[in-house]
Amino acid sequence: MPDPNGAMVWCPFPDRESAREVAGILLDEKLIACANIIGQIEAIFEWNGDRTSADEVAVLFKTSESRSEDLIQRLGDCHPYDTPAIFGWSCGQMHPATMAWLLQQTGSETE
Amino acid sequence: MPDPNGAMVWCPFPDRESAREVAGILLDEKLIACANIIGQIEAIFEWNGDRTSADEVAVLFKTSESRSEDLIQRLGDCHPYDTPAIFGWSCGQMHPATMAWLLQQTGSETE
Amino acid sequence: MPDPNGAMVWCPFPDRESAREVAGILLDEKLIACANIIGQIEAIFEWNGDRTSADEVAVLFKTSESRSEDLIQRLGDCHPYDTPAIFGWSCGQMHPATMAWLLQQTGSETE
Repeated sequence: MPDPNGAMVWCPFPDRESAREVAGILLDEKLIACANIIGQIEAIFEWNGDRTSADEVAVLFKTSESRSEDLIQRLGDCHPYDTPAIFGWSCGQMHPATMAWLLQQTGSETE
Repeated sequence: MPDPNGAMVWCPFPDRESAREVAGILLDEKLIACANIIGQIEAIFEWNGDRTSADEVAVLFKTSESRSEDLIQRLGDCHPYDTPAIFGWSCGQMHPATMAWLLQQTGSETE
Repeated sequence: MPDPNGAMVWCPFPDRESAREVAGILLDEKLIACANIIGQIEAIFEWNGDRTSADEVAVLFKTSESRSEDLIQRLGDCHPYDTPAIFGWSCGQMHPATMAWLLQQTGSETE
């Protein structure tokens, strides 16, 4: 069995309150070990053909690779936007102590 | 055909104005679907052998994996620095709705 | 030989001073080419079974993939926390000029 990987998911929210609320749900359901809420960010994008920008907060969710698919699905369900921007990637270089903590917090040790 | 991946590119800028300007060019050219401009960051590095730090803003560009190479090339061309720090990585865990939006915004559906 | 990759490591610190100090050590030892210290972030997690949150600063360390394992080990040793959250991932989409600078700064050209 190859060493397990971590995973990170980056997802902006309209405000800090909704970010904290969803992070709490995902922690309750052991889909993440930790959430980092980052600054106020400025998003620039197009919506229905119009260039627009929005002030948001970004959240970096941390989990095990084996939990990442369930995390992404659940995050999509409980996010306040209809089409949230949810980007996830594997982390193949993990500190062993961090990986052990991650597996324990997300109940993924036995996988 | 495997499921398409997303991709992210992290690149600091000297200021918010140049970050917004370049993000606009990349959106116009459908090389990205969205740009997140993050905080003021503090960069610590060595330049010509001297330790130095600089206040910058970071931008996280979001695109499809198939657009990432063109994005990185174009970003290098229009960035105000001679040697910008451009780091890109694939995102293999994407919410299906995010991936569909990404492909549509970057015109990568048919690839 | 395949093209070399970059790598990034995300790790929160209790404060800016300890983040700068550790970044200095890692630059001295050529384990990184650059560190980006990001905002104040809000971390939400569980510790010994209790939900808690903490104000931290995040650092994004930039290195070559070949240096990432040594970087992660050394970062774990000199971080002020007993169990820091150290997540690393490979960057397979690099601007050629950035990759050349990275290899030079971390002394990884000959690997």
